Amino acid sequence: MVETPAVAEPSAALAAPEVPDAAAVRAAAERIAPWIRRTPVLGAAALDAAAGGRLFFKCEPFQRTGSFKFRGASNAVLSLPEEEARRGVVTHSSGNHGAALALAARERGIPAWVVMPEGAPAVKRAAVEGYGGRVVFCAPTPEARIEGAARVERETGAVLVHPYDDPRVIAGQGTAALELLEEVPDLDLLVAPVGGGGLLSGTAIVAAAAGGRAIETIGAEPAAADDAARSLASGRIEPTSPVTPERPATIADGLRSGICPRTFAVMQTRVARIVTVSEEAIVAAMRTVWERLKVVTEPSAAVPVAALLGTGLAAGRRVGVILSGGNVDLDRLPWAGERSGL
Amino acid sequence: MVETPAVAEPSAALAAPEVPDAAAVRAAAERIAPWIRRTPVLGAAALDAAAGGRLFFKCEPFQRTGSFKFRGASNAVLSLPEEEARRGVVTHSSGNHGAALALAARERGIPAWVVMPEGAPAVKRAAVEGYGGRVVFCAPTPEARIEGAARVERETGAVLVHPYDDPRVIAGQGTAALELLEEVPDLDLLVAPVGGGGLLSGTAIVAAAAGGRAIETIGAEPAAADDAARSLASGRIEPTSPVTPERPATIADGLRSGICPRTFAVMQTRVARIVTVSEEAIVAAMRTVWERLKVVTEPSAAVPVAALLGTGLAAGRRVGVILSGGNVDLDRLPWAGERSGL
Repeated sequence: MVETPAVAEPSAALAAPEVPDAAAVRAAAERIAPWIRRTPVLGAAALDAAAGGRLFFKCEPFQRTGSFKFRGASNAVLSLPEEEARRGVVTHSSGNHGAALALAARERGIPAWVVMPEGAPAVKRAAVEGYGGRVVFCAPTPEARIEGAARVERETGAVLVHPYDDPRVIAGQGTAALELLEEVPDLDLLVAPVGGGGLLSGTAIVAAAAGGRAIETIGAEPAAADDAARSLASGRIEPTSPVTPERPATIADGLRSGICPRTFAVMQTRVARIVTVSEEAIVAAMRTVWERLKVVTEPSAAVPVAALLGTGLAAGRRVGVILSGGNVDLDRLPWAGERSGL
Repeated sequence: MVETPAVAEPSAALAAPEVPDAAAVRAAAERIAPWIRRTPVLGAAALDAAAGGRLFFKCEPFQRTGSFKFRGASNAVLSLPEEEARRGVVTHSSGNHGAALALAARERGIPAWVVMPEGAPAVKRAAVEGYGGRVVFCAPTPEARIEGAARVERETGAVLVHPYDDPRVIAGQGTAALELLEEVPDLDLLVAPVGGGGLLSGTAIVAAAAGGRAIETIGAEPAAADDAARSLASGRIEPTSPVTPERPATIADGLRSGICPRTFAVMQTRVARIVTVSEEAIVAAMRTVWERLKVVTEPSAAVPVAALLGTGLAAGRRVGVILSGGNVDLDRLPWAGERSGL
């Protein structure tokens, strides 16, 4: 029997990007199960009252490394064939994904390089190094970070694990929604934050494939970083929101990334809409979650909550919320002197 | 058949106070199950590393009303015969027990009166009233509160539900340890905070009756409110620690109460020892729990954690920690400017 080598079609560059299906999410769930925490689903009567519906919070602050990112990073690292894996992994995300990739790599016994800009907060470097990652500094521009990661790839043979533009990562992020639906199957709506779109895509893939009643998926985004909302409206990927002295970057630092063709393709077909929220609403929602749900939640994770409290979006519905992470500087809480609305 | 009315023996006043047994805790668990939340058991690798053992946190901040107190209050309220219950309940605790009793009463459809001193923080009054309780003000002395509650009893026929000197309350508090042991049976040690001793007593009753390996129970107490430790040392109930301008009350406001003969009797027979911790250690442990466990935890709940982190107490052991509650003023966090030890 003659083996025909797989050859890329000339049109491959124009083909739709590969996105995982629900089976890939289920496979990811099985793959990462021994390594991740199965996080609890919590709720609070005061939050239900404020939303006018029933809210079920999938609490990823309790995930290892403090966010859902450990799911996607673990799935990517565990999916690598042995010969690729042993050369290690690299990424240019210094936030939750960088820390998550460092721990996922350590669990497999392989090196992880995390490229971060000179001048990055010491706490971010400490988080990555605390999980055994190797920090590589670069100039403080997006281009320098991408080039820095590419140089590590060239010099070490490490495999790039992008924070969201990767089917293995998206499938891993979808496992949070999968677990939530296993525990609370009869939901009407799932809400997830959207930055690059990995978590939202994974969530939407799971929701669209769920048996039983139809589950809508909605993304929640800061108005100050609303490229996903603009992109869905215009039908093409729009640039990220400009940051100016008058209009600083959103407090939801995990959601500043732009979406990519892969996550946009999922959003266009499986996400009902994107809701945008103000900075004030994010801070108020974050505080309310701390007060009522008693979960230490980072600003990015409060964005879907801001979309639900007092807006009517949840009215009369059973809503699953992916509470994405809890990595926040306790010395710089954003509500000094303010009071919760509840 | 002639019914002999039950008559108190002349020596009854000298008899040992009634304490619940493990069967009473199991009965309480069944009674309150439809009303309480089964709270999750969480852990974090960084906390295990700092303790030198494996820590399993039973997370009562997620309990209804934000603390374990809802367990005991619910068991007391649900244990009342209908003719007593309909007259309502009263207590003189304005903290977590007051809020818990208010909600437990509302769930049964009966009134609850909570006596609190004039000048009590508005947030405490709001919590009680938010759960449907009726606040009765009195002069700001312990005697006035007890007399205030007695007057409500006389005038309304309401039943006093003491925050800890009550077998039904103690049995209810023990259900947290019961659930923890159902989930993690193979523990070596259980640690609970001690104020009046209701939670510690209930925990010790469960631990002493557990099958399988012997489980030690240890109480944790602020050094600034160490009456339980002094009482176990002397063999009699010692007064609460005096509060002076030089030595202010402990930050662990839930643990300022003195123990009572009922809880002391349980401690003498079933608690291995009481560990005391400094105010600094309480604040550091609280912050570490927020950072690493991502649970909003009140100072009183951090006291057992302070007893475990860096002390060697947990070395090589599997330790259950009753994380008692999460009601804390987010505008007055105690670590402004300080940094965690981890």
